[in-house]
Amino acid sequence: MSTDTTTDADADDESTSKCGASTETEAETDTSSSSSDPNCGASGGSGDSSGSSGSKCGASSSDSGSLASESKCGASSKKQSTEEKVGATIDDFDADPGQLTAVGLGPGHSEGMTERAKAALLDAEHIVGYTTYIELIPDEITAAADELYDTPMCGEVSRTEEAIDRALAGNDVAIVGSGDPNVYALAGLALEILESKGATASTVDFDVIPGVPAAQSCAARLGAPLVNDTVSISLSDHLVPMPEIESRLHAAARESFTIAIYNPWSRKRRDNFEKACEILLTHRDPDTPVGVVHGAGREDERVLITELAELEDLGESELVDMTTTIVVGNEETYVWDDRMVTPRGYETKYDY
Amino acid sequence: MSTDTTTDADADDESTSKCGASTETEAETDTSSSSSDPNCGASGGSGDSSGSSGSKCGASSSDSGSLASESKCGASSKKQSTEEKVGATIDDFDADPGQLTAVGLGPGHSEGMTERAKAALLDAEHIVGYTTYIELIPDEITAAADELYDTPMCGEVSRTEEAIDRALAGNDVAIVGSGDPNVYALAGLALEILESKGATASTVDFDVIPGVPAAQSCAARLGAPLVNDTVSISLSDHLVPMPEIESRLHAAARESFTIAIYNPWSRKRRDNFEKACEILLTHRDPDTPVGVVHGAGREDERVLITELAELEDLGESELVDMTTTIVVGNEETYVWDDRMVTPRGYETKYDY
Repeated sequence: MSTDTTTDADADDESTSKCGASTETEAETDTSSSSSDPNCGASGGSGDSSGSSGSKCGASSSDSGSLASESKCGASSKKQSTEEKVGATIDDFDADPGQLTAVGLGPGHSEGMTERAKAALLDAEHIVGYTTYIELIPDEITAAADELYDTPMCGEVSRTEEAIDRALAGNDVAIVGSGDPNVYALAGLALEILESKGATASTVDFDVIPGVPAAQSCAARLGAPLVNDTVSISLSDHLVPMPEIESRLHAAARESFTIAIYNPWSRKRRDNFEKACEILLTHRDPDTPVGVVHGAGREDERVLITELAELEDLGESELVDMTTTIVVGNEETYVWDDRMVTPRGYETKYDY
Repeated sequence: MSTDTTTDADADDESTSKCGASTETEAETDTSSSSSDPNCGASGGSGDSSGSSGSKCGASSSDSGSLASESKCGASSKKQSTEEKVGATIDDFDADPGQLTAVGLGPGHSEGMTERAKAALLDAEHIVGYTTYIELIPDEITAAADELYDTPMCGEVSRTEEAIDRALAGNDVAIVGSGDPNVYALAGLALEILESKGATASTVDFDVIPGVPAAQSCAARLGAPLVNDTVSISLSDHLVPMPEIESRLHAAARESFTIAIYNPWSRKRRDNFEKACEILLTHRDPDTPVGVVHGAGREDERVLITELAELEDLGESELVDMTTTIVVGNEETYVWDDRMVTPRGYETKYDY
């Protein structure tokens, strides 16, 4: 996976028409407080345990009530009382809290994970995450967990709440994402939700296990495109206004940063991609090398080195979608032997 | 190690007074072309092999000649002919080239390495790197190599040349650095040197194995400080003019990027650090949270969360040196339960 966890937030955009229990719907109807009553078709359990019977969870599914959701993503339909408070709080749990760990999986194949990530997942009793990421974890690790909680393309917020509720209920929980938890991902959201629940990070001994971000996984496939001062910019305006993103693109392109673009395109955000290409061309030559990596580390991985002038047209191709990371060179970047090279600067000082 | 490989370049600055065979001296005197004749006190070999007798190298040490170096870093003194061309070229080697792989070690402890990194090191016949990084590699991996080539605080260029020469001579070589090879590090330099030697990246099947960069390793120790659009800026003006760095700092601070500062301070670059603090305060509130992580992943690791107004004074403390990474929050970042939190933005849209 090359776009870290914002893919999930973007996917929420994509799926509002498919899944009644999208994050926007959750906001309107108040998210269910039951940790065993997901809105969004979560598959729970591993091995013999399923549902809430074997795990330590707060509310049971029969008590929650939930709003009927005309979901096409396989969610079970439940009604939800609008009078319910949003989310369980720490007062709803009697047990001593377990540990919550945010784990970065890196690019998405087992070999791209760190030893620490694997160890943290083996230690966890419950592993929570987007279905696609859970499926990337080696079987021997998921088999060792008491429970897996994964949801499809919806509900990053509810999934993170679920993870926290399970930790507050006394389980050691690992919540996973691709890339690194500090790159458009889990760590910030988890801390915000802990606070809203009246808990602290220390309550669950919150820890972050870093992983290889998509920018670096994709750069490795391109050669040496990043190298010097770099920015990462996401084109998802799900949570950040597009004018802010545009301003950052201008600043980055003017200052000759190498640029990693996350979440470059989705059906609902074509304009953002076009605008980004336009802004980059304002400051950089049309022949500036650009690397496009689709599905890094996955079976459908594709790598293309092209020029900035050609980038916009690629938006309508299969190469550019939510699993794509784009790496834009600066004025010193060149292409050599099918690789992008951004020089360190040594060639101006030394003969070699 | 928290500053990736620019530490080594900076260390070159620091060590010109200590080590005759600094990179600046190398430029003036023409680097020795012999891969078994390092300028800088490299310790070579592992197990029973030492020097050039067991390895496939171009020139033998008795033929090279080298300049006498009044080195205090333990380099063996050799004379070097100034008529020698800079570096061996592909024409100097008869063997079929081996593979060259740039491997990112991550923060510097074994558990922070990816499976791919470990596999690449096990596959390598020769492992080349800065001594401190070589020492971070688990013993079972270094023991499996035919040769280790490590140099102390000098000669990133000569070391990379050495690695390439050994690959051109037919060995499978891994060159290592902390963090990721695309973050102020190996990948760009290796490709530049390959080209200068008349080889191509394909000649040595050049590959890059990504690792966890210092920005993310340090962010993990601070909580969730990065999260959204982020820049990495190095304060080392060894290869980049300071006015350029200042311009980037202004741009980054204005646009509310979260900022990871690499190579914040050295004895010769105090002014750069002071200037950076001044620039940041121009755009950001004095109480902006700032995380300072010294020696991430090492035994002497120290983590401090402070405010921007306090940062400059820390420059003269032991906390801020070449192994330190500084993470500057944006206007939304806050400190909670001893952790930096930069919100994803969900709290403006959802109740949880």
